[in-house]
Amino acid sequence: MDEVRLIEVKEEIHSDNKVKAEELRSRLATSKTFLLNLMSSPGAGKTTTILKTIEILGDDLTMGVIEADIDSMVDAEKIAETGINAVQLRTGGFCHLDASMVERGLDGMDLSPLDLVIIENVGNLVCPAEFDTGAIKNAMILSVPEGDDKPLKYPLMFTVCDVLLVNKIDYLSLSDFDIQAMRERVLKLNPDIQIFEISSKTGQGVEAWVDWLKTEVNQFIN
Amino acid sequence: MDEVRLIEVKEEIHSDNKVKAEELRSRLATSKTFLLNLMSSPGAGKTTTILKTIEILGDDLTMGVIEADIDSMVDAEKIAETGINAVQLRTGGFCHLDASMVERGLDGMDLSPLDLVIIENVGNLVCPAEFDTGAIKNAMILSVPEGDDKPLKYPLMFTVCDVLLVNKIDYLSLSDFDIQAMRERVLKLNPDIQIFEISSKTGQGVEAWVDWLKTEVNQFIN
Repeated sequence: MDEVRLIEVKEEIHSDNKVKAEELRSRLATSKTFLLNLMSSPGAGKTTTILKTIEILGDDLTMGVIEADIDSMVDAEKIAETGINAVQLRTGGFCHLDASMVERGLDGMDLSPLDLVIIENVGNLVCPAEFDTGAIKNAMILSVPEGDDKPLKYPLMFTVCDVLLVNKIDYLSLSDFDIQAMRERVLKLNPDIQIFEISSKTGQGVEAWVDWLKTEVNQFIN
Repeated sequence: MDEVRLIEVKEEIHSDNKVKAEELRSRLATSKTFLLNLMSSPGAGKTTTILKTIEILGDDLTMGVIEADIDSMVDAEKIAETGINAVQLRTGGFCHLDASMVERGLDGMDLSPLDLVIIENVGNLVCPAEFDTGAIKNAMILSVPEGDDKPLKYPLMFTVCDVLLVNKIDYLSLSDFDIQAMRERVLKLNPDIQIFEISSKTGQGVEAWVDWLKTEVNQFIN
Protein backbone atom coordinates (compact mmCIF):
# COMPACT_ATOMS: atom_id res chain seq x y z
CA MET A 1 0.00 0.00 0.00
CA ASP A 2 1.36 3.40 -1.05
CA GLU A 3 1.72 6.03 1.62
CA VAL A 4 -0.99 8.71 1.46
CA ARG A 5 0.28 12.27 1.66
CA LEU A 6 -1.86 14.71 3.59
CA ILE A 7 -2.01 18.42 2.69
CA GLU A 8 -4.05 20.82 4.84
CA VAL A 9 -6.06 23.57 3.14
CA LYS A 10 -7.15 26.46 5.32
CA GLU A 11 -10.72 27.38 6.06
CA GLU A 12 -12.19 30.85 6.34
CA ILE A 13 -14.99 31.32 8.82
CA HIS A 14 -17.83 33.74 8.13
CA SER A 15 -18.77 36.07 10.98
CA ASP A 16 -21.76 38.09 12.24
CA ASN A 17 -24.09 35.31 11.20
CA LYS A 18 -24.54 34.03 14.74
CA VAL A 19 -25.83 37.43 15.93
CA LYS A 20 -28.41 37.55 13.14
CA ALA A 21 -29.43 33.96 13.90
CA GLU A 22 -30.09 34.84 17.56
CA GLU A 23 -32.20 37.83 16.45
CA LEU A 24 -34.29 35.49 14.30
CA ARG A 25 -34.79 33.07 17.20
CA SER A 26 -36.09 35.96 19.37
CA ARG A 27 -38.50 36.90 16.62
CA LEU A 28 -39.67 33.28 16.27
CA ALA A 29 -40.21 33.03 20.04
CA THR A 30 -42.37 36.15 19.91
CA SER A 31 -44.47 34.93 16.99
CA LYS A 32 -44.55 31.38 18.39
CA THR A 33 -43.27 29.91 15.15
CA PHE A 34 -41.02 26.85 15.16
CA LEU A 35 -38.36 26.98 12.44
CA LEU A 36 -36.88 23.70 11.22
CA ASN A 37 -33.80 23.70 8.97
CA LEU A 38 -33.76 20.61 6.74
CA MET A 39 -30.48 19.73 5.04
CA SER A 40 -29.16 16.89 2.86
CA SER A 41 -27.25 15.98 -0.28
CA PRO A 42 -28.95 16.65 -3.61
CA GLY A 43 -31.60 14.03 -4.26
CA ALA A 44 -31.79 12.57 -0.74
CA GLY A 45 -35.52 13.35 -0.61
CA LYS A 46 -35.99 16.72 1.11
CA THR A 47 -38.99 17.83 -0.94
CA THR A 48 -40.70 14.44 -0.78
CA THR A 49 -40.17 14.32 3.00
CA ILE A 50 -41.59 17.83 3.41
CA LEU A 51 -44.62 16.91 1.30
CA LYS A 52 -45.20 13.76 3.38
CA THR A 53 -44.82 15.77 6.60
CA ILE A 54 -47.33 18.37 5.36
CA GLU A 55 -49.73 15.56 4.43
CA ILE A 56 -49.66 14.18 8.00
CA LEU A 57 -49.29 17.40 10.02
CA GLY A 58 -51.26 19.79 7.84
CA ASP A 59 -54.51 19.39 9.80
CA ASP A 60 -52.86 19.95 13.19
CA LEU A 61 -50.41 22.77 12.52
CA THR A 62 -50.35 25.84 10.30
CA MET A 63 -47.24 25.50 8.18
CA GLY A 64 -45.01 27.39 5.79
CA VAL A 65 -42.00 26.37 3.71
CA ILE A 66 -38.90 28.31 2.62
CA GLU A 67 -37.33 26.69 -0.42
CA ALA A 68 -33.72 27.41 -1.32
CA ASP A 69 -32.72 26.55 -4.82
CA ILE A 70 -29.84 27.60 -6.99
CA ASP A 71 -31.87 28.29 -10.02
CA SER A 72 -35.18 26.49 -10.45
CA MET A 73 -38.52 26.84 -8.68
CA VAL A 74 -39.69 23.24 -9.15
CA ASP A 75 -39.66 22.37 -5.44
CA ALA A 76 -41.50 25.51 -4.32
CA GLU A 77 -44.13 24.90 -6.97
CA LYS A 78 -44.65 21.33 -5.70
CA ILE A 79 -45.10 22.66 -2.15
CA ALA A 80 -47.45 25.44 -3.23
CA GLU A 81 -49.69 22.85 -4.91
CA THR A 82 -50.53 21.58 -1.40
CA GLY A 83 -51.92 25.03 -0.52
CA ILE A 84 -49.09 25.65 1.94
CA ASN A 85 -47.43 29.08 2.11
CA ALA A 86 -44.17 28.69 0.13
CA VAL A 87 -41.38 31.22 -0.37
CA GLN A 88 -38.63 30.54 -2.89
CA LEU A 89 -35.14 31.88 -2.21
CA ARG A 90 -33.23 31.74 -5.46
CA THR A 91 -29.63 31.69 -4.24
CA GLY A 92 -28.00 32.41 -7.63
CA GLY A 93 -25.14 29.98 -7.07
CA PHE A 94 -24.84 30.25 -3.30
CA CYS A 95 -24.20 26.86 -1.78
CA HIS A 96 -25.95 27.39 1.57
CA LEU A 97 -28.39 29.62 3.43
CA ASP A 98 -27.28 31.92 6.21
CA ALA A 99 -29.45 33.71 8.78
CA SER A 100 -29.84 36.89 6.73
CA MET A 101 -31.11 34.93 3.73
CA VAL A 102 -33.58 33.09 5.96
CA GLU A 103 -34.66 36.45 7.39
CA ARG A 104 -35.59 37.53 3.88
CA GLY A 105 -37.63 34.36 3.52
CA LEU A 106 -39.44 34.96 6.83
CA ASP A 107 -40.05 38.60 5.79
CA GLY A 108 -41.93 37.17 2.82
CA MET A 109 -44.46 35.44 5.09
CA ASP A 110 -46.99 36.52 7.72
CA LEU A 111 -45.49 34.64 10.66
CA SER A 112 -48.23 35.29 13.22
CA PRO A 113 -50.54 32.42 12.19
CA LEU A 114 -47.69 29.99 11.42
CA ASP A 115 -46.81 27.22 13.94
CA LEU A 116 -44.07 25.66 11.84
CA VAL A 117 -41.85 26.84 9.01
CA ILE A 118 -39.57 24.32 7.33
CA ILE A 119 -36.49 25.52 5.46
CA GLU A 120 -35.46 23.28 2.59
CA ASN A 121 -31.79 24.22 2.47
CA VAL A 122 -29.56 23.92 -0.63
CA GLY A 123 -28.72 20.27 -1.43
CA ASN A 124 -25.21 20.09 0.02
CA LEU A 125 -23.66 18.21 2.97
CA VAL A 126 -20.84 20.73 3.42
CA CYS A 127 -21.58 24.46 3.49
CA PRO A 128 -25.07 24.50 5.07
CA ALA A 129 -23.63 22.79 8.18
CA GLU A 130 -21.38 25.80 8.80
CA PHE A 131 -24.12 28.43 8.97
CA ASP A 132 -26.62 28.90 11.79
CA THR A 133 -29.84 29.78 9.97
CA GLY A 134 -31.71 30.91 13.08
CA ALA A 135 -33.64 27.63 13.15
CA ILE A 136 -34.89 26.15 16.43
CA LYS A 137 -33.81 22.66 15.34
CA ASN A 138 -31.64 21.28 12.56
CA ALA A 139 -32.59 18.12 10.71
CA MET A 140 -30.77 16.21 8.01
CA ILE A 141 -31.57 13.41 5.62
CA LEU A 142 -29.10 10.70 4.70
CA SER A 143 -30.46 8.48 1.96
CA VAL A 144 -29.50 4.81 1.84
CA PRO A 145 -27.96 4.95 -1.67
CA GLU A 146 -25.45 7.58 -0.47
CA GLY A 147 -23.74 4.99 1.73
CA ASP A 148 -23.12 4.36 5.40
CA ASP A 149 -19.71 6.10 5.35
CA LYS A 150 -21.09 9.64 5.07
CA PRO A 151 -20.68 10.41 8.83
CA LEU A 152 -16.95 9.80 8.37
CA LYS A 153 -16.74 12.13 5.38
CA TYR A 154 -19.11 14.97 6.35
CA PRO A 155 -18.83 14.91 10.14
CA LEU A 156 -19.86 18.52 10.80
CA MET A 157 -23.31 18.02 9.26
CA PHE A 158 -24.00 15.03 11.52
CA THR A 159 -22.69 16.98 14.52
CA VAL A 160 -24.88 20.09 14.14
CA CYS A 161 -28.16 18.23 13.57
CA ASP A 162 -30.75 17.38 16.23
CA VAL A 163 -32.37 14.74 14.09
CA LEU A 164 -31.28 12.40 11.31
CA LEU A 165 -33.78 10.92 8.88
CA VAL A 166 -32.34 7.85 7.17
CA ASN A 167 -34.45 7.94 4.01
CA LYS A 168 -35.07 5.54 1.12
CA ILE A 169 -35.00 2.47 3.34
CA ASP A 170 -36.98 0.85 0.51
CA TYR A 171 -33.59 0.66 -1.26
CA LEU A 172 -31.99 -1.39 1.54
CA SER A 173 -32.55 -4.70 -0.26
CA LEU A 174 -30.34 -3.56 -3.17
CA SER A 175 -27.70 -1.91 -1.04
CA ASP A 176 -24.80 -2.89 1.20
CA PHE A 177 -25.70 -0.01 3.55
CA ASP A 178 -24.95 -1.12 7.12
CA ILE A 179 -27.47 0.63 9.39
CA GLN A 180 -25.73 -0.46 12.58
CA ALA A 181 -22.33 0.81 11.41
CA MET A 182 -23.90 4.10 10.30
CA ARG A 183 -25.66 4.49 13.68
CA GLU A 184 -22.41 3.92 15.56
CA ARG A 185 -20.57 6.48 13.40
CA VAL A 186 -23.29 9.07 13.87
CA LEU A 187 -23.71 8.55 17.63
CA LYS A 188 -19.95 8.81 18.12
CA LEU A 189 -20.10 12.31 16.58
CA ASN A 190 -23.38 13.27 18.21
CA PRO A 191 -24.70 11.07 21.06
CA ASP A 192 -27.91 13.14 21.47
CA ILE A 193 -29.12 12.95 17.87
CA GLN A 194 -32.52 11.38 17.17
CA ILE A 195 -32.46 8.88 14.31
CA PHE A 196 -35.51 7.80 12.33
CA GLU A 197 -35.47 5.27 9.49
CA ILE A 198 -38.03 6.26 6.89
CA SER A 199 -39.16 5.97 3.30
CA SER A 200 -40.86 9.19 2.29
CA LYS A 201 -41.97 7.47 -0.91
CA THR A 202 -43.75 4.52 0.74
CA GLY A 203 -44.52 6.29 4.03
CA GLN A 204 -42.73 3.62 6.10
CA GLY A 205 -41.49 5.02 9.42
CA VAL A 206 -42.65 8.57 8.70
CA GLU A 207 -45.21 8.64 11.56
CA ALA A 208 -42.48 8.37 14.22
CA TRP A 209 -40.59 11.31 12.71
CA VAL A 210 -43.74 13.40 12.48
CA ASP A 211 -44.66 12.57 16.10
CA TRP A 212 -41.23 13.78 17.22
CA LEU A 213 -41.59 17.00 15.20
CA LYS A 214 -45.12 17.64 16.47
CA THR A 215 -43.98 17.25 20.08
CA GLU A 216 -41.09 19.67 19.53
CA VAL A 217 -43.32 22.24 17.87
CA ASN A 218 -45.96 22.01 20.58
CA GLN A 219 -43.37 22.40 23.34
CA PHE A 220 -42.09 25.53 21.62
CA ILE A 221 -45.37 27.23 20.81
CA ASN A 222 -47.27 26.46 24.03
CA MET B 1 -52.17 26.83 -5.75
CA ASP B 2 -50.53 29.55 -3.66
CA GLU B 3 -48.36 32.01 -5.48
CA VAL B 4 -44.64 31.39 -5.00
CA ARG B 5 -42.66 34.46 -4.07
CA LEU B 6 -39.18 34.73 -5.50
CA ILE B 7 -36.33 36.45 -3.67
CA GLU B 8 -32.92 36.83 -5.32
CA VAL B 9 -29.77 36.39 -3.23
CA LYS B 10 -26.54 37.79 -4.66
CA GLU B 11 -23.54 35.73 -5.57
CA GLU B 12 -19.88 36.59 -5.10
CA ILE B 13 -17.49 35.38 -7.74
CA HIS B 14 -13.95 34.39 -6.84
CA SER B 15 -11.18 35.76 -9.04
CA ASP B 16 -7.61 34.96 -10.08
CA ASN B 17 -8.44 31.28 -10.15
CA LYS B 18 -8.66 31.17 -13.93
CA VAL B 19 -5.08 32.42 -14.31
CA LYS B 20 -3.76 29.74 -11.96
CA ALA B 21 -5.83 27.10 -13.80
CA GLU B 22 -4.24 28.09 -17.13
CA GLU B 23 -0.76 27.85 -15.55
CA LEU B 24 -1.58 24.32 -14.42
CA ARG B 25 -2.75 23.35 -17.92
CA SER B 26 0.57 24.56 -19.37
CA ARG B 27 2.43 22.47 -16.82
CA LEU B 28 0.28 19.41 -17.64
CA ALA B 29 0.93 19.88 -21.38
CA THR B 30 4.67 19.94 -20.71
CA SER B 31 4.62 16.82 -18.54
CA LYS B 32 2.09 15.12 -20.87
CA THR B 33 -0.25 14.40 -17.98
CA PHE B 34 -4.02 14.41 -18.54
CA LEU B 35 -5.90 15.80 -15.53
CA LEU B 36 -9.54 14.75 -15.06
CA ASN B 37 -11.73 16.54 -12.51
CA LEU B 38 -14.46 14.20 -11.22
CA MET B 39 -17.40 15.78 -9.38
CA SER B 40 -20.71 14.58 -7.91
CA SER B 41 -23.02 14.69 -4.90
CA PRO B 42 -21.90 12.84 -1.78
CA GLY B 43 -22.41 9.11 -2.23
CA ALA B 44 -22.92 9.11 -6.00
CA GLY B 45 -20.01 6.71 -6.43
CA LYS B 46 -16.86 8.72 -7.21
CA THR B 47 -14.43 6.47 -5.35
CA THR B 48 -15.98 3.25 -6.66
CA THR B 49 -15.89 4.63 -10.21
CA ILE B 50 -12.24 5.64 -9.85
CA LEU B 51 -11.37 2.18 -8.50
CA LYS B 52 -13.17 0.51 -11.42
CA THR B 53 -11.42 2.83 -13.88
CA ILE B 54 -8.03 2.03 -12.34
CA GLU B 55 -8.84 -1.70 -12.55
CA ILE B 56 -9.49 -1.46 -16.30
CA LEU B 57 -6.95 1.21 -17.31
CA GLY B 58 -4.17 0.46 -14.86
CA ASP B 59 -2.21 -1.77 -17.26
CA ASP B 60 -2.35 0.75 -20.12
CA LEU B 61 -1.75 4.07 -18.39
CA THR B 62 0.30 5.26 -15.42
CA MET B 63 -2.15 6.92 -13.07
CA GLY B 64 -2.38 9.07 -9.97
CA VAL B 65 -5.31 10.26 -7.88
CA ILE B 66 -5.86 13.47 -5.90
CA GLU B 67 -8.49 12.93 -3.22
CA ALA B 68 -10.30 15.89 -1.66
CA ASP B 69 -12.04 15.20 1.58
CA ILE B 70 -13.29 17.46 4.31
CA ASP B 71 -11.91 15.45 7.13
CA SER B 72 -11.31 11.74 6.60
CA MET B 73 -8.75 9.83 4.56
CA VAL B 74 -10.87 6.74 3.86
CA ASP B 75 -11.06 7.30 0.09
CA ALA B 76 -7.35 7.96 -0.38
CA GLU B 77 -6.55 4.84 1.61
CA LYS B 78 -8.83 2.75 -0.62
CA ILE B 79 -7.06 4.14 -3.71
CA ALA B 80 -3.60 3.62 -2.24
CA GLU B 81 -4.44 -0.06 -1.64
CA THR B 82 -4.44 -0.49 -5.46
CA GLY B 83 -0.81 0.64 -5.53
CA ILE B 84 -1.74 3.87 -7.34
CA ASN B 85 -0.09 7.15 -6.35
CA ALA B 86 -2.68 8.92 -4.13
CA VAL B 87 -2.48 12.38 -2.58
CA GLN B 88 -5.03 13.43 0.01
CA LEU B 89 -6.05 17.09 0.21
CA ARG B 90 -7.79 17.59 3.53
CA THR B 91 -9.88 20.69 2.84
CA GLY B 92 -10.78 21.42 6.48
CA GLY B 93 -14.35 22.41 5.68
CA PHE B 94 -13.85 23.83 2.20
CA CYS B 95 -16.66 22.84 -0.11
CA HIS B 96 -14.70 22.70 -3.37
CA LEU B 97 -11.22 22.57 -4.86
CA ASP B 98 -9.73 25.51 -6.74
CA ALA B 99 -6.68 25.55 -8.99
CA SER B 100 -4.24 26.50 -6.23
CA MET B 101 -5.38 23.57 -4.07
CA VAL B 102 -4.99 21.22 -7.05
CA GLU B 103 -1.52 22.69 -7.64
CA ARG B 104 -0.56 21.62 -4.12
CA GLY B 105 -1.85 18.13 -4.93
CA LEU B 106 0.19 17.98 -8.16
CA ASP B 107 3.23 19.30 -6.25
CA GLY B 108 2.88 16.20 -4.07
CA MET B 109 3.42 13.87 -7.06
CA ASP B 110 6.16 13.24 -9.61
CA LEU B 111 4.18 14.14 -12.74
CA SER B 112 6.71 13.07 -15.36
CA PRO B 113 5.78 9.36 -15.46
CA LEU B 114 2.02 9.99 -15.01
CA ASP B 115 -0.32 9.79 -18.04
CA LEU B 116 -3.50 10.46 -16.11
CA VAL B 117 -4.32 12.08 -12.78
CA ILE B 118 -7.92 11.95 -11.56
CA ILE B 119 -9.13 14.53 -9.03
CA GLU B 120 -11.90 13.25 -6.77
CA ASN B 121 -13.44 16.61 -5.89
CA VAL B 122 -15.47 17.32 -2.73
CA GLY B 123 -18.93 15.68 -2.84
CA ASN B 124 -21.04 18.70 -3.80
CA LEU B 125 -23.05 19.64 -6.92
CA VAL B 126 -22.80 23.39 -6.26
CA CYS B 127 -19.43 24.94 -5.41
CA PRO B 128 -17.04 22.69 -7.38
CA ALA B 129 -18.82 23.69 -10.61
CA GLU B 130 -17.79 27.32 -10.08
CA PHE B 131 -14.03 26.72 -9.90
CA ASP B 132 -11.75 25.83 -12.79
CA THR B 133 -9.32 23.33 -11.25
CA GLY B 134 -6.88 23.37 -14.16
CA ALA B 135 -8.22 20.03 -15.38
CA ILE B 136 -8.15 19.12 -19.07
CA LYS B 137 -11.68 17.67 -18.85
CA ASN B 138 -14.46 17.82 -16.28
CA ALA B 139 -16.58 14.77 -15.52
CA MET B 140 -19.54 14.36 -13.21
CA ILE B 141 -21.53 11.49 -11.81
CA LEU B 142 -25.28 11.62 -11.33
CA SER B 143 -26.55 8.55 -9.51
CA VAL B 144 -30.00 7.17 -10.27
CA PRO B 145 -31.33 7.49 -6.68
CA GLU B 146 -30.67 11.26 -6.78
CA GLY B 147 -33.43 11.71 -9.32
CA ASP B 148 -33.81 12.85 -12.91
CA ASP B 149 -34.57 16.47 -11.93
CA LYS B 150 -31.01 17.33 -10.89
CA PRO B 151 -30.15 19.10 -14.20
CA LEU B 152 -32.99 21.53 -13.41
CA LYS B 153 -31.70 22.22 -9.92
CA TYR B 154 -27.92 22.25 -10.38
CA PRO B 155 -27.63 23.47 -13.98
CA LEU B 156 -24.10 24.90 -13.77
CA MET B 157 -22.57 21.51 -12.90
CA PHE B 158 -24.16 19.90 -15.96
CA THR B 159 -23.05 22.85 -18.10
CA VAL B 160 -19.35 22.80 -17.20
CA CYS B 161 -18.84 19.04 -17.61
CA ASP B 162 -17.54 17.29 -20.72
CA VAL B 163 -18.88 13.94 -19.62
CA LEU B 164 -21.73 12.70 -17.45
CA LEU B 165 -21.68 9.26 -15.88
CA VAL B 166 -25.17 8.15 -14.89
CA ASN B 167 -24.22 5.70 -12.15
CA LYS B 168 -26.09 3.07 -10.13
CA ILE B 169 -28.23 1.97 -13.07
CA ASP B 170 -28.63 -1.25 -11.07
CA TYR B 171 -31.13 0.80 -8.98
CA LEU B 172 -33.33 1.61 -12.00
CA SER B 173 -35.77 -1.21 -11.28
CA LEU B 174 -36.68 0.36 -7.89
CA SER B 175 -36.72 3.95 -9.10
CA ASP B 176 -38.96 6.24 -11.11
CA PHE B 177 -35.86 7.83 -12.68
CA ASP B 178 -36.70 8.77 -16.29
CA ILE B 179 -33.48 8.42 -18.30
CA GLN B 180 -34.97 10.01 -21.41
CA ALA B 181 -36.24 13.06 -19.49
CA MET B 182 -32.87 13.42 -17.75
CA ARG B 183 -31.02 13.20 -21.10
CA GLU B 184 -33.22 15.90 -22.61
CA ARG B 185 -32.67 18.21 -19.62
CA VAL B 186 -28.91 17.69 -19.72
CA LEU B 187 -28.55 18.08 -23.51
CA LYS B 188 -30.59 21.29 -23.40
CA LEU B 189 -27.99 22.74 -21.00
CA ASN B 190 -25.01 21.18 -22.74
CA PRO B 191 -25.52 19.70 -26.23
CA ASP B 192 -21.89 18.50 -26.48
CA ILE B 193 -21.77 16.47 -23.26
CA GLN B 194 -20.97 12.75 -23.49
CA ILE B 195 -23.35 10.59 -21.43
CA PHE B 196 -22.57 7.07 -20.26
CA GLU B 197 -24.94 4.88 -18.23
CA ILE B 198 -22.95 2.75 -15.82
CA SER B 199 -22.95 0.75 -12.64
CA SER B 200 -19.54 0.97 -11.03
CA LYS B 201 -20.63 -1.73 -8.60
CA THR B 202 -21.58 -4.35 -11.21
CA GLY B 203 -19.29 -3.03 -13.95
CA GLN B 204 -22.18 -2.61 -16.42
CA GLY B 205 -21.43 0.06 -19.03
CA VAL B 206 -18.06 0.97 -17.54
CA GLU B 207 -16.05 -0.18 -20.58
CA ALA B 208 -17.58 2.49 -22.83
CA TRP B 209 -16.68 5.23 -20.34
CA VAL B 210 -13.14 3.92 -19.97
CA ASP B 211 -12.72 3.71 -23.77
CA TRP B 212 -13.74 7.37 -24.04
CA LEU B 213 -11.31 8.37 -21.30
CA LYS B 214 -8.46 6.33 -22.81
CA THR B 215 -8.98 7.98 -26.21
CA GLU B 216 -8.97 11.46 -24.64
CA VAL B 217 -5.81 10.74 -22.65
CA ASN B 218 -3.99 9.28 -25.67
CA GLN B 219 -4.92 12.27 -27.84
CA PHE B 220 -3.51 14.60 -25.18
CA ILE B 221 -0.28 12.79 -24.38
CA ASN B 222 0.73 11.74 -27.92
